[in-house]
Amino acid sequence: MDPRTRELLAQASTATITTQLLARGLRNTFLAGIGPLNPGNARMVGEAFTLRYIPAREDIDVLEVFRDYDHPQRKAIESVPPGHVLVMDCRNQGRAASAGNILATRLMVRGAAGLVTDGTLRDTPEISRLAMPAFSRGASPMTNLAQHHAVDMQIPIGCAEVAVYPGDIIVGDEEGVVCIPAHLADEIAEPAAAQEELERFILQEIENGRPLKGTYPPDEDTLSRAAHRST
Amino acid sequence: MDPRTRELLAQASTATITTQLLARGLRNTFLAGIGPLNPGNARMVGEAFTLRYIPAREDIDVLEVFRDYDHPQRKAIESVPPGHVLVMDCRNQGRAASAGNILATRLMVRGAAGLVTDGTLRDTPEISRLAMPAFSRGASPMTNLAQHHAVDMQIPIGCAEVAVYPGDIIVGDEEGVVCIPAHLADEIAEPAAAQEELERFILQEIENGRPLKGTYPPDEDTLSRAAHRST
Amino acid sequence: MDPRTRELLAQASTATITTQLLARGLRNTFLAGIGPLNPGNARMVGEAFTLRYIPAREDIDVLEVFRDYDHPQRKAIESVPPGHVLVMDCRNQGRAASAGNILATRLMVRGAAGLVTDGTLRDTPEISRLAMPAFSRGASPMTNLAQHHAVDMQIPIGCAEVAVYPGDIIVGDEEGVVCIPAHLADEIAEPAAAQEELERFILQEIENGRPLKGTYPPDEDTLSRAAHRST
Amino acid sequence: MDPRTRELLAQASTATITTQLLARGLRNTFLAGIGPLNPGNARMVGEAFTLRYIPAREDIDVLEVFRDYDHPQRKAIESVPPGHVLVMDCRNQGRAASAGNILATRLMVRGAAGLVTDGTLRDTPEISRLAMPAFSRGASPMTNLAQHHAVDMQIPIGCAEVAVYPGDIIVGDEEGVVCIPAHLADEIAEPAAAQEELERFILQEIENGRPLKGTYPPDEDTLSRAAHRST
Amino acid sequence: MDPRTRELLAQASTATITTQLLARGLRNTFLAGIGPLNPGNARMVGEAFTLRYIPAREDIDVLEVFRDYDHPQRKAIESVPPGHVLVMDCRNQGRAASAGNILATRLMVRGAAGLVTDGTLRDTPEISRLAMPAFSRGASPMTNLAQHHAVDMQIPIGCAEVAVYPGDIIVGDEEGVVCIPAHLADEIAEPAAAQEELERFILQEIENGRPLKGTYPPDEDTLSRAAHRST
Amino acid sequence: MDPRTRELLAQASTATITTQLLARGLRNTFLAGIGPLNPGNARMVGEAFTLRYIPAREDIDVLEVFRDYDHPQRKAIESVPPGHVLVMDCRNQGRAASAGNILATRLMVRGAAGLVTDGTLRDTPEISRLAMPAFSRGASPMTNLAQHHAVDMQIPIGCAEVAVYPGDIIVGDEEGVVCIPAHLADEIAEPAAAQEELERFILQEIENGRPLKGTYPPDEDTLSRAAHRST
Repeated sequence: MDPRTRELLAQASTATITTQLLARGLRNTFLAGIGPLNPGNARMVGEAFTLRYIPAREDIDVLEVFRDYDHPQRKAIESVPPGHVLVMDCRNQGRAASAGNILATRLMVRGAAGLVTDGTLRDTPEISRLAMPAFSRGASPMTNLAQHHAVDMQIPIGCAEVAVYPGDIIVGDEEGVVCIPAHLADEIAEPAAAQEELERFILQEIENGRPLKGTYPPDEDTLSRAAHRST
Repeated sequence: MDPRTRELLAQASTATITTQLLARGLRNTFLAGIGPLNPGNARMVGEAFTLRYIPAREDIDVLEVFRDYDHPQRKAIESVPPGHVLVMDCRNQGRAASAGNILATRLMVRGAAGLVTDGTLRDTPEISRLAMPAFSRGASPMTNLAQHHAVDMQIPIGCAEVAVYPGDIIVGDEEGVVCIPAHLADEIAEPAAAQEELERFILQEIENGRPLKGTYPPDEDTLSRAAHRST
Repeated sequence: MDPRTRELLAQASTATITTQLLARGLRNTFLAGIGPLNPGNARMVGEAFTLRYIPAREDIDVLEVFRDYDHPQRKAIESVPPGHVLVMDCRNQGRAASAGNILATRLMVRGAAGLVTDGTLRDTPEISRLAMPAFSRGASPMTNLAQHHAVDMQIPIGCAEVAVYPGDIIVGDEEGVVCIPAHLADEIAEPAAAQEELERFILQEIENGRPLKGTYPPDEDTLSRAAHRST
Repeated sequence: MDPRTRELLAQASTATITTQLLARGLRNTFLAGIGPLNPGNARMVGEAFTLRYIPAREDIDVLEVFRDYDHPQRKAIESVPPGHVLVMDCRNQGRAASAGNILATRLMVRGAAGLVTDGTLRDTPEISRLAMPAFSRGASPMTNLAQHHAVDMQIPIGCAEVAVYPGDIIVGDEEGVVCIPAHLADEIAEPAAAQEELERFILQEIENGRPLKGTYPPDEDTLSRAAHRST
Repeated sequence: MDPRTRELLAQASTATITTQLLARGLRNTFLAGIGPLNPGNARMVGEAFTLRYIPAREDIDVLEVFRDYDHPQRKAIESVPPGHVLVMDCRNQGRAASAGNILATRLMVRGAAGLVTDGTLRDTPEISRLAMPAFSRGASPMTNLAQHHAVDMQIPIGCAEVAVYPGDIIVGDEEGVVCIPAHLADEIAEPAAAQEELERFILQEIENGRPLKGTYPPDEDTLSRAAHRST
Repeated sequence: MDPRTRELLAQASTATITTQLLARGLRNTFLAGIGPLNPGNARMVGEAFTLRYIPAREDIDVLEVFRDYDHPQRKAIESVPPGHVLVMDCRNQGRAASAGNILATRLMVRGAAGLVTDGTLRDTPEISRLAMPAFSRGASPMTNLAQHHAVDMQIPIGCAEVAVYPGDIIVGDEEGVVCIPAHLADEIAEPAAAQEELERFILQEIENGRPLKGTYPPDEDTLSRAAHRST
């Protein structure tokens, strides 16, 4: 990702980004139902590193499998490059957790930008105090083996019924997570920043008592005043 | 709404009000699944002003429609009278938001008493800091066009599977939102206040170690002591 | 319950306990979808005292029934022994509440260890300030009669699709509630404590930059260092 | 049940019966989501005999338990009196079946009037060919132990979120199952028959081209013609 | 609707029509979850006549309201023009029915082309034998008042989460119902017929053992052979 | 698969097979919610050939992609070996179909044993008349691109929340589909056949009026009589 793109997207809200994507015909980019464990620490941007789970089977998914350091879940944790976001496909199911605090901590120590699952997390009080943002459908103390089987990584997945391809740009804030197709990230970064600046001006106008008419959306006059202010 | 009714209902909890309505045969008055964005700012009372959405269609619901200041969503915002609550029917669907911060702010500036949707809101961190209470099924950054089409206002709607007629009295608190049929608001306001006062006394008695028997529900003796205290 | 077991389980997380139960073949012990009203006051352990609700019927479940102090709901409240947890089966339905603040307060005054429902609670702002932990699927101000009929107590129930037998050990923390079959409580208490101690050591190692390999799960060397530290 | 009541209810549709119950204030009497295995053999009327299931637990619900002829499920089958309907509460869950063909056949041989579950049945091709009607949420070949534990019988239950008390009158037809509170069965039997006869006349009128106005609901003239015809 | 368009659409499958609409950017035109009562009588085409329901309220929605021939539900039945399809918005809720056999029969006698609801129907055995096709989410014997309140007609609605505007073209077949925006009906009618003819040829080729490659989609050679055959 | 195993499993019901798997500790082997398009043609057995879909994205999943004969969906159809069952993971989502009649016909012509999806199928009237059994969550005429993106094949998938590994044995009958882990197929084939034979005898006994006691489960005497009969 272009450093300038990363910088701009790190300041853009998911609300702005989804509008930019909608303007380009993409209506399904928000991971609905997924929220930050810690709303006060939710700003996140990074390339997607994907991990896929399928349903567990009682004869395969026993506690002993964790003794294998090459278990796909552990291998994924040790493979996420710095600045990337681990995105886990748990089929929107969360009776058992996708991961817990020790793995999340290792991920953070390795420099990952964040953690996203369409299932649940365990040890959530601890994870929510980490410096690295984490997003899930909620909490479940149950270890993943009771419902999930980590099977492979770095292939395209669905997460919360949104397509996520490895390398897509994942942005998170207090409202949740949006997935930007890799080829659009640079294209929308500048317009997103401009949209946010304009909307800050519009909001001030509205706070000052202006009606929607002429202000939102802005007419020529409002646009001109907005342009002057920002100079 | 009678000012005395408004004053009394502004102090009544939704728990008390639903009990008063149940006593009059109404079992479906609570908007289940809808909560306040800011639990610390959830006390709300006002007449319902309704706005209805239907599902979006890709060829109609494009970003350009927002250029029309007569778009029903914007028109509704500019039409809610002071002291009223904007209640939006989004068919319990929240992949896209019903409204965002600029519209919510304009609504507040115009003097609305609150904002309710059975869908989601966007810019929720900002909306939750407004002085005006807002209630939704959660947050989604996606603009409404991706799933919703605002179509008309001030007609009867369903909100969270509860019937809401324009002019019904909408009351909100930390637990959520209840809809009082317009013709019952005056009738229940006083009994609601009396019920709350009695229950405060009963709670004290229970805290002091009294058993339920004789206390909750109160027998003659408890009622008599409650009556003396409140004099 | 053995006092030592109670003491150990009171410090174990639900994450640890579900792992211990999974190791013994039990995959369905977490009450999914149920959380604490007050995450800051969620530590709870006690024997299950069960109360069962069936759907309400309009001709039976009228407000007058509450005048009967032998109504099963009230009787249950007055029957829960000190140190026990009242667990209510509301069929995972929460349009109406399972109980409110006066009953919860009485339960606390009588010495109960906690309150769990797979439905909702009312007066939740007040209940969340009680010293006694309470867990539910959320809040609903509606009194239980609008949807529920308390019918009997101290029989086996389902709660959030988990079997709960009277006398099972119920443990709660910030992530939710787990049900330990009575005959397993003593057996898992010590291993749970040991697991937690070991995981604290492992976490430190991970925070210090150790990779998963050798550390999690711990190899001989890590186990040996863990053993020395705890001496 | 009065034989005349049984005879009349055996001819009344569930549509008519729910209307009669609604007229008496009961809005929740239809077991939504439950249909006949064999739509051609769905006419059923009988007193409810109830059986309750809770969620299974892996250490209790093993195949060996079936060796016990006093297992509640088997005991219930051998206890349903002739002319009664076995109604099973499976918490609306149907990943595993409530019963299979051998038990259903035994039930039929013993003279039961029918079989109802809010879960699923197994061996459904065979059960659908029995002379005795059976109703469920669908089919699942999985034996009940994988999800359900039969625990007790002849106590009030919920079935498809409707209250069913032992002795209530259960009526089924092609559209599904309705539960008539025991004390109302005699009261509604005659009005139900009268309603059906009147509606047959109205339907003929409508088929003959009459408008709704004056016909449905019937005005004095239509009622008078209906009365003459039926003489 | 142009008679030629009606004729062509009456032969096109919903599968073909949704593909034609997808080619024009419309991805949400199929009323998911809605099927024909009688799969053998499901071919239907006509302009949409809409009827909207909101949730019922116990004090308004009593059986007496049916005495009013101007009740919106009855008025709608008497207003649907010949050749039109009555489309009812019941908010995807079906505990109570949207309509029953007498109303459906009247609708048919008046010449309507069909009946669609995103809720349920009652008297379904009788309705399924009518000459007029009917589509619903299933059956419920409960009269609409127990859950629904007919409120207005001929305004835009949502049906099964698809936007339906009065005058849109509704097409049904054994697989369900699709809504064609009014302005696209003429445009897609011919291409739909051509697509169907081509696919019939392709299917024959596939049945004769041709591989997908070159056949589906058709290459130049296959297209040329298809063109010759149809001459 | 051993030919004898195939022969035995082709006669075993899914009810029997899930019991055999439960006896070996596997509780989650039935694909809940999936049924045969044609209940009269549902007997199916074969090795699983898997195909995985992720959510569609509007800029990638356009009709033009079908021009590529190497599109994973088409490639999968041309790759399924004779006697195998194509099992598709559509994340339990069915607004758009997983496949239609032309692909299903090609699959049949190539000798596949069947077709299973946890989503929906289109052209279902035609597919239900094919000689090859097909199972789905229902029908949707919408082509897969509107919701699904075929991405890869022959990797482990989840189907209806059951793990399916390539080569697992898929068995279908009128009640639905069960997945047998590859390594257990031979082991359970004989016991399944024996169980079915015994149950046929037991059923006869029950039909003849024997009580459950002694018959189901069979005691020594019943087992002995069963053994003699089958000689």
